[in-house]
Amino acid sequence: MGGDNAPRSVLRGATIAKRRHPDLEFLIFGDEARLAPMMKRMIRLRRSSTIVHTPDIVLADEKAATALRSGRNSSMRKAIDAVRSGEAAGVVSAGNTGALMAMAKVVLKTVPGIDRPAMASFFPTMRGETAMLDLGANIECSADNLVQFAMMGETFARTVLGSLRPTVGLLNVGSEEVKGHEELREAHAILKQSNLAYSGFVEGDDIAAGTVDVVVADGFSGNVALKTAEGTAKLVNEFVRQTFKSSLLAAIGYLFARRALIKLRARVDPRRYNGATFLGLNGIVVKCHGGSDALGFATGVGVARDMIRNGFIDRMVQEFHEPAASEADRSRTAIGSNTVLGMGAQAVSST
Amino acid sequence: MGGDNAPRSVLRGATIAKRRHPDLEFLIFGDEARLAPMMKRMIRLRRSSTIVHTPDIVLADEKAATALRSGRNSSMRKAIDAVRSGEAAGVVSAGNTGALMAMAKVVLKTVPGIDRPAMASFFPTMRGETAMLDLGANIECSADNLVQFAMMGETFARTVLGSLRPTVGLLNVGSEEVKGHEELREAHAILKQSNLAYSGFVEGDDIAAGTVDVVVADGFSGNVALKTAEGTAKLVNEFVRQTFKSSLLAAIGYLFARRALIKLRARVDPRRYNGATFLGLNGIVVKCHGGSDALGFATGVGVARDMIRNGFIDRMVQEFHEPAASEADRSRTAIGSNTVLGMGAQAVSST
Repeated sequence: MGGDNAPRSVLRGATIAKRRHPDLEFLIFGDEARLAPMMKRMIRLRRSSTIVHTPDIVLADEKAATALRSGRNSSMRKAIDAVRSGEAAGVVSAGNTGALMAMAKVVLKTVPGIDRPAMASFFPTMRGETAMLDLGANIECSADNLVQFAMMGETFARTVLGSLRPTVGLLNVGSEEVKGHEELREAHAILKQSNLAYSGFVEGDDIAAGTVDVVVADGFSGNVALKTAEGTAKLVNEFVRQTFKSSLLAAIGYLFARRALIKLRARVDPRRYNGATFLGLNGIVVKCHGGSDALGFATGVGVARDMIRNGFIDRMVQEFHEPAASEADRSRTAIGSNTVLGMGAQAVSST
Repeated sequence: MGGDNAPRSVLRGATIAKRRHPDLEFLIFGDEARLAPMMKRMIRLRRSSTIVHTPDIVLADEKAATALRSGRNSSMRKAIDAVRSGEAAGVVSAGNTGALMAMAKVVLKTVPGIDRPAMASFFPTMRGETAMLDLGANIECSADNLVQFAMMGETFARTVLGSLRPTVGLLNVGSEEVKGHEELREAHAILKQSNLAYSGFVEGDDIAAGTVDVVVADGFSGNVALKTAEGTAKLVNEFVRQTFKSSLLAAIGYLFARRALIKLRARVDPRRYNGATFLGLNGIVVKCHGGSDALGFATGVGVARDMIRNGFIDRMVQEFHEPAASEADRSRTAIGSNTVLGMGAQAVSST
């Protein structure tokens, strides 16, 4: 029921995801009286879904604490509960981010060894895709938090991007060791001694350059970087659009280049990078933009599915519990997003 | 002598600036044995410049403390000294940022009422241009620092952009009052009570959207935003370039739209936004990118000239000393960058 265009875009998104990944099954949490009529014509979706009626919803502007206290019968809470109980292998929501994070933390708890969960996503870069975290869950971060984020992000990149040995960088304002906040310098010192492929400090322009596979930041800087990148991409796109309207010749040029330009638009389409994932929890939780349309929601479902299929949680538990074993594992195997580990992904439930 | 392409790009940049602004005169600080032969053929520049020989230079990777201690006879230091003594009305440099800031702080001092100088620059936006500060001079900022930056940035936007009553926003990770670091929330509370046209919290995507005329941030977030925006713009430009190489039709389209696309490139050319200005000092100090070419350097000189011509320092002194008077001034006058206030800008010295 969450997101500006819910529940329609959620249902349509699930339909697209089902077409892309026929193995998916859905538990759909929400107001049955609204969902059932909408799903009447969505035959394919109906066959592979179960509606779980929930009386309440979490509002978009509700405070996390309020949602936590009084939202026990909300679609969001019930969907997370289903992950906890094992009925669902993961949850995808376009609802209130703060409430989703708070509920997921309370219900699913963090993996032992992880103090705080973080939000991660992918960015298109000059060299492919780069994962970045934290994108806003933790405004203040200690050196330990940052080190844990680095390990979580590295596992995420191995699991979803299928990178063999992802490189990791710490977001800073310069590459020299003396730069930045104290927590950053401390985390830098710890990471240099770690088993990760740690590349040192990176700067804002390294994100789009794809200098490293994983960019680690505190939630404040990460959120600023994420939104600045989105805003800038939008601006340049607008400039390109205006360019082709600026003269007759340019308009003719557009007609010739149209097909290629449509591909370009798809390439920088934010809906391709829509799923922000909560890492560090005992369960897969993917948050879509509040403004997600069906395509955006389908992308979020796809990310959740990849993480489930590739055993992300098992890897995290192993990484933080048995660092020695996971180190051996890292040098031995490279598991791409096509390798099914058989974690039994019967259901991705969506709220 | 500072910057990757110095001194050639500096001399060429000064030549371009002189063509754009015939009223400029230069004191050129550096190694006369290298400068004089290069300037032999630059007749126009030679006529309006004086070479001031300096034996030393500040290296690009030199620590600020070292430069401060042992760089007393460097071109950078001597150029700043010339601003202090009144021989020059401002200084433009593409050299070591940390050293320039440290020297400028020690030699020129801050305007009474300002604790720390900040770095500011302009960004292209959906609605024109937006000024942002701090871009990296102050990694840790108190609420008072942020409030002072807001006032400095507002004066900067009035002086250089010629905005009547620039709106000011604080960079945060959400627009709600409860978000962000404590310093931010404190600064927010103070600014709400101030005489500025304060718009509240803004987010990373508001920079390119042009939501406000001045974006205020601590030096860490500001630097991350600046570099992320640069990196993203570069990435989208590269995607556009690849698009026109992706098929024969696209290549033909390029031929038609070529002239418009060249204009587009100029529009997002970082050299147009090259000058970062140190605000809060008793003197105009503009820092160009280390990799500046002649055009970039000329832009930096142009920014310095606008600030000098429009009496930026006087306005700052007034703003921080006599807030009541400046308030009256703000509501009365709007001085665009073409209005000459006659501060007597005989020389912009370049190092």
